[in-house]
Amino acid sequence: MKAIIQQNLSEPTSLTWSDAPTPVPGDGEVLVRIVAAGVNRADTLQAKGHYPPPTGTTDIIGLEAAGVIEDAHGACRPDGTPWADGEKVGVLLSGGGYAEYVAVPSGQLVPMPKGYSFVETASVVEVACTVWSNLMMTAELTAGDTLLIHGGGGGVGLFAIQVAKALGARVAVTAGSAEKLEVCRSYGADILINYREEDFAAVLKAEGGADVILDIIGAKYLDKNVSALAKDGHLVIIGMQGGVKGELNIGALLAKRGSISATGLRYRDRADKARIVAATVEHVWPMLESGQVTHHIDRVVPVADAAAAHAALLAGEITGKVVLQVTED
Amino acid sequence: MKAIIQQNLSEPTSLTWSDAPTPVPGDGEVLVRIVAAGVNRADTLQAKGHYPPPTGTTDIIGLEAAGVIEDAHGACRPDGTPWADGEKVGVLLSGGGYAEYVAVPSGQLVPMPKGYSFVETASVVEVACTVWSNLMMTAELTAGDTLLIHGGGGGVGLFAIQVAKALGARVAVTAGSAEKLEVCRSYGADILINYREEDFAAVLKAEGGADVILDIIGAKYLDKNVSALAKDGHLVIIGMQGGVKGELNIGALLAKRGSISATGLRYRDRADKARIVAATVEHVWPMLESGQVTHHIDRVVPVADAAAAHAALLAGEITGKVVLQVTED
Ligand SMILES: NC(=O)c1ccc[n+]([C@@H]2O[C@H](COP(=O)([O-])OP(=O)(O)OC[C@H]3O[C@@H](n4cnc5c(N)ncnc54)[C@H](OP(=O)(O)O)[C@@H]3O)[C@@H](O)[C@H]2O)c1
Ligand SMILES: NC(=O)c1ccc[n+]([C@@H]2O[C@H](COP(=O)([O-])OP(=O)(O)OC[C@H]3O[C@@H](n4cnc5c(N)ncnc54)[C@H](OP(=O)(O)O)[C@@H]3O)[C@@H](O)[C@H]2O)c1
Repeated sequence: MKAIIQQNLSEPTSLTWSDAPTPVPGDGEVLVRIVAAGVNRADTLQAKGHYPPPTGTTDIIGLEAAGVIEDAHGACRPDGTPWADGEKVGVLLSGGGYAEYVAVPSGQLVPMPKGYSFVETASVVEVACTVWSNLMMTAELTAGDTLLIHGGGGGVGLFAIQVAKALGARVAVTAGSAEKLEVCRSYGADILINYREEDFAAVLKAEGGADVILDIIGAKYLDKNVSALAKDGHLVIIGMQGGVKGELNIGALLAKRGSISATGLRYRDRADKARIVAATVEHVWPMLESGQVTHHIDRVVPVADAAAAHAALLAGEITGKVVLQVTED
Repeated sequence: MKAIIQQNLSEPTSLTWSDAPTPVPGDGEVLVRIVAAGVNRADTLQAKGHYPPPTGTTDIIGLEAAGVIEDAHGACRPDGTPWADGEKVGVLLSGGGYAEYVAVPSGQLVPMPKGYSFVETASVVEVACTVWSNLMMTAELTAGDTLLIHGGGGGVGLFAIQVAKALGARVAVTAGSAEKLEVCRSYGADILINYREEDFAAVLKAEGGADVILDIIGAKYLDKNVSALAKDGHLVIIGMQGGVKGELNIGALLAKRGSISATGLRYRDRADKARIVAATVEHVWPMLESGQVTHHIDRVVPVADAAAAHAALLAGEITGKVVLQVTED
């Protein structure tokens, strides 16, 4: 098959569409022919050598895709019915999405949401699982809560706004431009904060504090996030774009009876991923199919131009998602 | 009435048994004549000016006591039946325990555990609510979990060991002497760590990590606590004996998908305290009445010697609890 291969591991842009061995599905795995693959910020980190795939995973980049089952290999859905060759599916991956074929643990297959294309499906799998697992399974977001989402204009951010609004939360977002904030507003964000111009902690304090914060910045925002929390608030850190180590004011956290969780999807074991995928399909797919929550694709790029897609994401050009077209459907 | 009054706010030992106005119960409050009052480390902090009572609370020290209802004032139990004058009760307080009388929100009254004296009851109210709310309501400790308790020989620590064993957990403790560790062992602790001689994080790592940590040290142990956590582990900080601000390695926390909560009982509102008290009576009182969990009273001291009780606690002389005898029963 063909896949994106990084020619020089110290050169993150050396991504070329090259020959690679076609994967062979192992026990409990399904072989999928990929039509489209979503790009995630984590992919740009992996290209920089910062986010290694879990042991046993291909080192081909790519955390989500959509395509057609080539070999169902006896795998079944959570309800016990078998997957069939030729079915159209989305896949949540630990790696391997930037390729013509991928072998996927069966618990990480999802149906295409009704009415969704391959490109649209590839753009929502990872963000949907990330948003549902963090907002609901970790933070237990409740109707009436105030949620602060950092990077509201990003792939995770735009999706999180919509799911949170569907759940009845009040949503505050940070972003770095008026354009991105306007898109956030169009998806329902209630409080818009340009982090280049305003102090988000001061805004949130004036609004009564955040019951939940979905954070992608880490160290740089740790202190301000704690001060932006409401009583009994929960800070959920899923990214460290602003560094890994930060000073925690435990006294300030205790005064609020606050909690901090740091979570990731990629290194979970198969059972845990299957649990998250099943919950996401159960709860988020109906939102997608009714149109209550939707995809937001900034652009679609041929897979051979993966390096350009990464560059655009890192330059802050992308609102929502960029998707790679891998093969024709 | 008589109460312990701090004569000089900059002198933590200037605690004298003096005249003070008898409290008048407000709406939803009950007047209790106190027979015995428990001493908590927080009381020593308050005497040092570090742990101010919540607004609206007496500045008389004392977070727990036991005694006799002097004026039930129309208050009812959670089940709707009225409290009666003359009933023997324990009380969870925001302050005011070192006195002959205290006015208590009715949700913070507890029955005396069957077979318990006033002194014994006064020694368990605060630790039982602390342990139950943190281990169960915050950390959701589960049978088979490994729990690390810092300060296993203290008031909270000895109680936490027993409740955790009753819940089926494996218990590791730290303490500063072989004597205290031996008492921990006698209550069921499985892994004994003298923090003056051993690195608790290394011990816990070798044991597979802690699913839950009940921490009273704060900043000084933050980094080591994170490294002692197991996958999906939960660090619950209830004290800051080792400082307030510490560096958090978010990357290390994320690699474990760990959580940190910092909690306190004293500043919660009445409804929240009533909820915790009710859950504690429901779940912990049967453990006390069956003997599965018991009190551990190091010594009983006349209330006039409160300063000496504080000094003994701060000198590390106390294993378990020290209780003040306030009036005769
Ligand atoms: N733990 C997990 O399981 C998991 C799963 C998925 C994603 N993630 C992480 O979540 C983050 C977002 O992923 P993504 O794929 O959605 O990336 P993305 O599309 O690049 O979104 C990141 C957004 O952050 C914004 N941003 C940059 N600096 C900021 C700052 N200081 N304050 C607020 N916003 C800022 C960027 O735009 P502007 O600066 O122009 O506003 C951008 O829109 C990444 O760190 C990723 O690694 C984690
Ligand atoms: N947040 C809340 O709601 C809440 C409620 C109750 C209590 N607390 C807090 O919980 C803590 C314990 O309260 P307590 O009343 O049980 O106090 P305590 O009886 O004085 O117990 C504290 C214990 O910590 C041990 N210790 C001291 N330094 C240590 C270290 N570096 N590592 C491990 N252990 C150490 C002490 O004995 P050795 O050093 O001799 O072993 C002592 O046994 C206090 O900080 C208190 O403020 C919080």
